[in-house]
This record gives sequence, structure tokens and C-alpha cells, in this order.
Amino acid sequence: MAKLSDRITSITGGGSDGWEVFYRARRMVAAGETVTELTIGEHDVLTDETILDAMHRSAKGGHTGYAMVPGVAALRQAVADRLTKRTGVPTKPDNILITPGGQSALFSAHMAVCNPGDTALYVDPYYATYPGTIRAASAIPHAIETRSRDAFLPDPELVSETARAHKARSLLINSPNNPTGTVYPRTTLEGIAKACIDNDMWLISDEVYDTQIWQGDHLSPRALPSMVERTLMIGSFSKSHAMTGSRIGWIAAPEEVITKLIDLATSTTYGVPGYIQDAALFALQQGEPLEEKIAAPFRRRRDLMREILAEQSAVKAIPSNGAMYTMLDVRATGLSGLDFAQALLTKHKIAVMPGESFGNSAAGHVRVALTVADDKLSDSVRTLCQFAHDLSKETSCAS
Amino acid sequence: MAKLSDRITSITGGGSDGWEVFYRARRMVAAGETVTELTIGEHDVLTDETILDAMHRSAKGGHTGYAMVPGVAALRQAVADRLTKRTGVPTKPDNILITPGGQSALFSAHMAVCNPGDTALYVDPYYATYPGTIRAASAIPHAIETRSRDAFLPDPELVSETARAHKARSLLINSPNNPTGTVYPRTTLEGIAKACIDNDMWLISDEVYDTQIWQGDHLSPRALPSMVERTLMIGSFSKSHAMTGSRIGWIAAPEEVITKLIDLATSTTYGVPGYIQDAALFALQQGEPLEEKIAAPFRRRRDLMREILAEQSAVKAIPSNGAMYTMLDVRATGLSGLDFAQALLTKHKIAVMPGESFGNSAAGHVRVALTVADDKLSDSVRTLCQFAHDLSKETSCAS
Repeated sequence: MAKLSDRITSITGGGSDGWEVFYRARRMVAAGETVTELTIGEHDVLTDETILDAMHRSAKGGHTGYAMVPGVAALRQAVADRLTKRTGVPTKPDNILITPGGQSALFSAHMAVCNPGDTALYVDPYYATYPGTIRAASAIPHAIETRSRDAFLPDPELVSETARAHKARSLLINSPNNPTGTVYPRTTLEGIAKACIDNDMWLISDEVYDTQIWQGDHLSPRALPSMVERTLMIGSFSKSHAMTGSRIGWIAAPEEVITKLIDLATSTTYGVPGYIQDAALFALQQGEPLEEKIAAPFRRRRDLMREILAEQSAVKAIPSNGAMYTMLDVRATGLSGLDFAQALLTKHKIAVMPGESFGNSAAGHVRVALTVADDKLSDSVRTLCQFAHDLSKETSCAS
Repeated sequence: MAKLSDRITSITGGGSDGWEVFYRARRMVAAGETVTELTIGEHDVLTDETILDAMHRSAKGGHTGYAMVPGVAALRQAVADRLTKRTGVPTKPDNILITPGGQSALFSAHMAVCNPGDTALYVDPYYATYPGTIRAASAIPHAIETRSRDAFLPDPELVSETARAHKARSLLINSPNNPTGTVYPRTTLEGIAKACIDNDMWLISDEVYDTQIWQGDHLSPRALPSMVERTLMIGSFSKSHAMTGSRIGWIAAPEEVITKLIDLATSTTYGVPGYIQDAALFALQQGEPLEEKIAAPFRRRRDLMREILAEQSAVKAIPSNGAMYTMLDVRATGLSGLDFAQALLTKHKIAVMPGESFGNSAAGHVRVALTVADDKLSDSVRTLCQFAHDLSKETSCAS
């Protein structure tokens, strides 16, 4: 066999990625075992039937040929209007590219701003695909580490120093955050904006959880002074409209950037199915009531988890102000996040993601996805806490 | 605004791309004029209703969450079985990656085999996106020019010399060919295979028109000796199953290549909607009768065109043995393909693609897409021939 490209052989970065717990749980389920999966961010409620009916009407109505590569006009307009309304940043259809999912948007954004060999920054802990996405764009991923006691918020000073030292072209942030549930406060975002401006760096702002805010407000950094011209904002219908499998998202950016991103889309995806775009338009037209209906179970479960966690001290929760996850510090057990998750799966058939799956910063933590029914979640979290408690006692007795 | 990446600003290559005729025709239609559009390869028959119903059943049945990134197992198996049967090359599901369309497959294939700065060969005339796709992968596109009198078949000697001179990593071919309608004969493909082997070069074989063969046989170069391990074959449901807008295709390649392509897909697209995959599986399960039904109008119209063209000598047809196009040599008119197409659109409201849209080799030609009803196609082609005849008389009188 001839040689493959260096970039494609190095996308994964090699070594364990901590996803073995997820795959082990899937194998157990496939083998007929009952496992409570609190691993990935997949809604337990499926795409709304009315959205699927809208899709079928569009397909039957003939929207099955090539759609316009930048996206259908009405959907670009609707996304632009939604952003204008939600973020206060005047946004036009020419600022919007419809993409086959948020992941495609993340990749395209890095392709647009990084040359091969450029450094692209991202914040650790991070969504699983981030470093691979940067490597796929032939750029060099460089992590900004954070600390549990800072709720995993990045330090803008460190961002700026790192950007300067590595001549970084871009910084990728994600607020509300997966995996931590943190919502970046204004001061953090202002510091990040300054770091971007001072270092002439692009900000790639992944805001796919923007409808899942449990406490405080979500500030889109594109709305900060001088940031609209250097921000590529990533959105998606996956989380806001429970359309994960439909692979539809968007990028909002200056018109000159979108023009070039359309060239890239022509060469890489050739657009998004027209009937899926029509379904997404229908979903947007349902307005906030549908978005709130989809977010409601996660809000309820996050509150539920807070109550349960307040009753114990074996695990420590990172304050989850948004997104469908809670990150738990299990270091008092003396175990790594990975060992804790493996032991929990073995003993109690409860699967959670080790913090180590998301980089170095969240070692000794586990992430709980709020994606099962309330009573099952309560039981599982109580079990997890008791399990941690017992381990901690062993640890303190042994020491 | 900060600087964009060099790659994204140079994807289009700059200058006129000959698509102004297509866009002018679209504007005329939008303004209410009646234009016969023989431009792009879009079926006049929409996606079969039974396929759309299968899609809706799948979506309503709950296949709306994240699908497996490599593709759903049953579809990978069905594609593998179809390739085994049609090409004689034993193909397994692990040799198949399902992609969001043939364009995504083309891009991913180049990402897999070319490093930034590597030379990637392609054959001129070419499908519009080819050079941009190679540039998007940060590789350097290099055209292998061909000649009208050779039916635009590439000369394997020239391929080999060029590969050697530029240390090319890959060669992209397309048979049955868009825009020429040529089907590469065995001798050409054997010569190409030798050029690939001699120069340790990957072959990227775009076979999306493999169900549209009007004369002779389609030979998949993956079936030639020692080629299975250095061929990435591109397929799609767009042309074979009239699913253009559904954006679903595949790559067939050695398992080690597919493994790496899955890493790339995880970072660039995160898979294809499950309900579209189920619809494609349904389409494949209908077997050859559906494929033949979809190909039938193009076969009929290609025969029709041959009859009409045989009655005149003003334009010369390149023998169209496959695909939904016929390429016509209009050099006797003294006009470029572009000027001829513009004049034809102005005078007769018939839109065809100038050969110049597809590179240098087809200058002085126009491509006719067989994508309108038979009688309309007959009338348009007769009008085109008469128009060329009148122009040629003017030319010969003037000279």
C-alpha cells in the first residue's frame, strides 16, 4: 500500500482517549446487560414528530435536488434573525453558512483561519473532537489548561501569553461548556476578547448549547466590542432542537469569511439536504416554546442533581450553569476518573465519562450526562455518591 | 478583519470559470423568461417516492440520533456486496465509508493521500469542483490535458511523465466521464494503472456514473491487478438513484485507509443522517430494476441525440458512451465555447455549458446535459445545430 498523508495518520494523536468506558458500556448493552448510560450528549427525547413531518412534506414537495450550497435563503434569514434577536449583533443572511452539522462548522472554521502548521488554541477540558479537528485542518492544537477550583474557566492572561509564544491564529472556546457545564461569565469573555484582539487572533466560539442556560445569562462573545469582525460563531440544531442525527448547523461570521467558506463548502460537502433545511426552518419557526420544551428535562435534572449532591460530601460538583452535563470531582476517592468510572461500571452498571476523556485538566473527575429519566438519574447519582463515599473511607482508613 | 488562511482564499483559483452562462440562464428564469436549461447534471425525475417514504419510516421509527460515523452496518454491507457483484473485487463492510455525498468523498480521499504542498493530478476536461477540492486539501492541482480527437481520453504516458516530474501523490479520474460522456476503455485504464504503480501513486476513481453506460462496459480500475491496494473508489447515490440533494455517497478503499478516513470523518462531518442511510439502503435493495428505470431516460435521449447529430455536420459529437451528457465540438463556427453558449442563450434561450467551464482541453466545445424531456431536447439540439450551421456559413463566407 502506498503511504497515507501525515495529517490523516495523526488525527487521533495516538494513545488512550478515555473512551474505553463508553465502548465497554455499549458492548455490555449489546450483550444484553442493563446499563445506565450517562455518557454522551444524546437526548433521551427524539426529534419532535412535527419536525419530521415538516421534513417529509418538503421531500414529497420536491425539495430533493441539489440545494443551494450556502443554505436555502429562508433558513439563512431565519438563523440570522434569531442571532440578531438573541445576541443583539445585527446579522444578515450573508453572515450565515448552513453546514452539515456543528462538527463540519468547527472543521470549516479552522480551515478558514489556519494555514498548515499554524497553532490553534483550545481550552482543556474539551469536547472530544477538538484536537482532532484542528489536526485534520493541518494546524497544531495547543491546549490552554484550566483548574477544577476555577470551575475550569480559562485564564485570559494565560491565553494571551500562549497566543504570543506560539503565534496562534485562533482560539476555540465553548460556552455553555461541554464537558464542564460551565457558562463563561462576562469578565472571562472580555479577557478572552482582549487576548484575541491583542494577538490578532480569530475567536471560534462554539455556542451549540446556547438554549441550555440554567443560571445567569449566556453572553455571545461576538457581541463584545470589536469582536464581530474576528469571531466565527458555531451553532447547531442538534442540542437546541434535538436534531443530533440530522447533521445541520451553521457558522456566523463576517460576510467576507462566509464568501470564502462557501468556496470551501462547494469543495468539501456541496451543501445540506434541502428537506433537512426546511425541517430546521420549521423548527426555528416554532420559536422559544419548542426550544424550552426540549431544554426543560435537562433543567429539571440539573436541579435534581444539585439537591442530591448537596446532601453528601464524597464527590464535589463543579457548578453546572448550562449544558446537559455535570462534572464531579472524585479525587477524594484516591482513584483517577478513568479507574473510578471503570469500577462504577463494573460494580453498579452505571456508565459515566472519565474526566481524562476530555484532556488533562479534568483528571480525577467524571462527567455525568443528564440524559436518562429523572428517577433513574436520581438513583444512579445516589449510587455514585455512595460508591465514592465508600471508596473515600477506604482511602482515608488506609492512609 | 484578521487574515484568512491562504488555502481558503485560493480555492477558486481566480478568474472566470465559465459558469456565467449557467448563472445568466438562472437569472433569466427567475425574471420569468422561458429558458431550456441543458446545463447541470440534475435529473428531471425527482427522488422516487418509495425512497422518500422509506426515509420517513426510518425517521418516525426513531433513527434520528447520532448514527455510527463510518455508516450504518447494513448499508456498508449492501454497498460492499454491490461492489463485489458489479466489479468482481471482493469487498467487505470494512472497506466502505459512507460519506455525506460524493463531493465529501472526493475531498476526504485527497485529504487521506496528499500532504500540504503535494501535487495531485486530474484530467482536463474535469468536473467543476476538482481543482478546488485538491486546493481545499492544501495540495497542488496539476491538470493532464487531453484532446478532442482522442475523445478526451488521457494518455497514460503523459500521466506517468507528469507524475514523475511532479512527484505526484495521486491521480483523479472519472469514468464514465463528466463532462465528456466518455467511458474509459480497458487499454486506457491499464495504462493508467501502470502509471500509478510505476510512480507509487494513489488512484482516486470517481465512478458516480457507473449505472449510466450506453455502449460497451464500465471497468472499475480497482479490479485491475495490484490496484485494489492503491485505489480509492468514489461512489454516490446521486446519479444512480436520483438522490442528488440527499448528499450520500461512499468511498471504497483498503481497510487501513478506511480506518483513517473514519478518524477524518469524526473530525469533519460526524457521519450521515441515519434516516438518509436507511433510505439509501432501501434504494439499493430495489436492485438493478430501479437503477435501470432511473438511467432509462438518459439512454433514450442519448440515442435520440445521436440520430439528430448524424443528420448534420455543423457540430461534431464526442462519442457519448456513458453519463448524462454529450460534448459537442463547435469550433467550425469560429466561436469559443463560451461565446457560442452566450449567443445561443441570447438568440434561442437555450442554455448549455461552455467547454471552457471544464478546463482548457474542451475549449471550442459545449456540453449538453440530457436533463429535459425528449421532445424539448430534440427541438433544442436541432436549433443548436442549425444555429451552428448558420454561424459556420458566415465564417466560411467571411474567410
